[in-house]
Amino acid sequence: MTRRGYYAAVDWGTSSFRLWIIGQDGSVLAERRSGEGMATAAKTGFQRVLDAHLAAVEAPDHLPIIICGMAGARQGWQEAGYLETPAKLAAIPGKAIAVPDVDRDIRILPGLAQRDERQPDVMRGEETQLLGAADGLGGGRHLVCMPGTHSKWVRLSGETVEGFSTFMTGELFDVISRHTILSHAVADADAVAGDNPAFADAVAQAREKPALATNLLFSVRAGQLLYGLSAADARARLSGMLIGLEISGALATAGSVDGICLVGSGGLGALYRSALESQGFAPRLVDADEAVRQGLSAAARLIWPL
Amino acid sequence: MTRRGYYAAVDWGTSSFRLWIIGQDGSVLAERRSGEGMATAAKTGFQRVLDAHLAAVEAPDHLPIIICGMAGARQGWQEAGYLETPAKLAAIPGKAIAVPDVDRDIRILPGLAQRDERQPDVMRGEETQLLGAADGLGGGRHLVCMPGTHSKWVRLSGETVEGFSTFMTGELFDVISRHTILSHAVADADAVAGDNPAFADAVAQAREKPALATNLLFSVRAGQLLYGLSAADARARLSGMLIGLEISGALATAGSVDGICLVGSGGLGALYRSALESQGFAPRLVDADEAVRQGLSAAARLIWPL
Repeated sequence: MTRRGYYAAVDWGTSSFRLWIIGQDGSVLAERRSGEGMATAAKTGFQRVLDAHLAAVEAPDHLPIIICGMAGARQGWQEAGYLETPAKLAAIPGKAIAVPDVDRDIRILPGLAQRDERQPDVMRGEETQLLGAADGLGGGRHLVCMPGTHSKWVRLSGETVEGFSTFMTGELFDVISRHTILSHAVADADAVAGDNPAFADAVAQAREKPALATNLLFSVRAGQLLYGLSAADARARLSGMLIGLEISGALATAGSVDGICLVGSGGLGALYRSALESQGFAPRLVDADEAVRQGLSAAARLIWPL
Repeated sequence: MTRRGYYAAVDWGTSSFRLWIIGQDGSVLAERRSGEGMATAAKTGFQRVLDAHLAAVEAPDHLPIIICGMAGARQGWQEAGYLETPAKLAAIPGKAIAVPDVDRDIRILPGLAQRDERQPDVMRGEETQLLGAADGLGGGRHLVCMPGTHSKWVRLSGETVEGFSTFMTGELFDVISRHTILSHAVADADAVAGDNPAFADAVAQAREKPALATNLLFSVRAGQLLYGLSAADARARLSGMLIGLEISGALATAGSVDGICLVGSGGLGALYRSALESQGFAPRLVDADEAVRQGLSAAARLIWPL
């Protein structure tokens, strides 16, 4: 490394690992990405995975590490607990825990928990995206959508998380398209295109009649049998129904908000943008990768001031 | 067989095969059950499976056979087409097709199709249960619930099927409990007990807030993490949410009805009864096995009058 690193920022999810070496001026000096998420690292060893990536970018020995995500889960590297809602985002760094018995200063950020017996919920990693994204939102009440395997919708008031809701959209899309009778209908189709009319149509149907969700799913199969629905349209309908149902539920519990913010990236971010726009919303867009790096950096600068 | 058979009635589903030899007085002379549904028989041969069961009960060579269910699907023994809604139940037997190139008179009953581009739907087998169950209902409009892998809710006016809706409840319960993050929460639990308060509570939550369906699912995982939800309660909640969502959707499209009829059997029938009763309904109960046998018999007596 030509310039001296200030800290390393790591987003360690269930199935992905991302590391950035950040300089004192905030610039990214090096970056690593791999599939060695918690699921893999729990077997091969968290320290071993981290050390290999640090060595690959020739990170100095003293470099401190800030981590968010599933590495802090009970079945992760070191349990980092939860901050409870309502939670001030600025309180997150103060609850970071140090990984014991290692040669560096390694801190893992806590997750957020909603201890409500009727609507219990948890997140790990998205709170750090929020910390990074919230800066740009200004004051007021915002609804922040973070799509993914388990999509999160956060009710943010200023810098306080009032509450949030997780929707199993991504995981359901995966298991329904692979393991149910719909697998025949959606087989061999490409990734869903947000501009496919079948997608927007399904978003609208599910938003209008959420109670019919599992009936609408079956209609993909019936549509194939009776109308020769193509695999691409079938896949678009399945995706649109699950995302439309999610939007319907998130908005039903949101109350009055000043705006919707979409923290996403890649194809999935584009799909949610398309779904929201088709329903008449104009979400503010924040890149998810950027947000998590900024959140990790905000925490690092508080923990290790220059 | 000590008494002469009149016909054999076969309910041939995706994963199950049931055969009854019926006497001229309507009594059951012999019965066979096996797991050789369409999925198996499509590989080993439909005729071979049928012949083996007929031989096991020493059925006479001349005995005619009436069949309903997936044996009439495109990927079944012989495609039997669909009757279209609105459909008179009495018209079902007349649309039976004969299996060609066999030594007996074998007829397969058609399914029902709802050719509606917004709500396309199909059934095979349940139309025969309906034919058997409708006799006891008298006139008026009834909502008939037939729980299963793909639950059917039929809007029946007198003897006419106005329309119907399929809900993927059973299949979703199966794939969610086996292939998603909830698999840890529900693992090793016994079958869901309808009198578990967690079941009725989840039915109520999903019925009240159907838009939150995929969020309520995730709350099973969060409930386990934050409140140590037991596997039995987690499983009851998952089942209750999916059944509550189904009830919510079915009632939303039912219009005004004179009563709800539940055509079920065994544990699943008891679970749906419990769910409906917990929501203040008093469904009329019809045994599903009995209903399909009566429906097959009604068709046989029309096709082969004594």
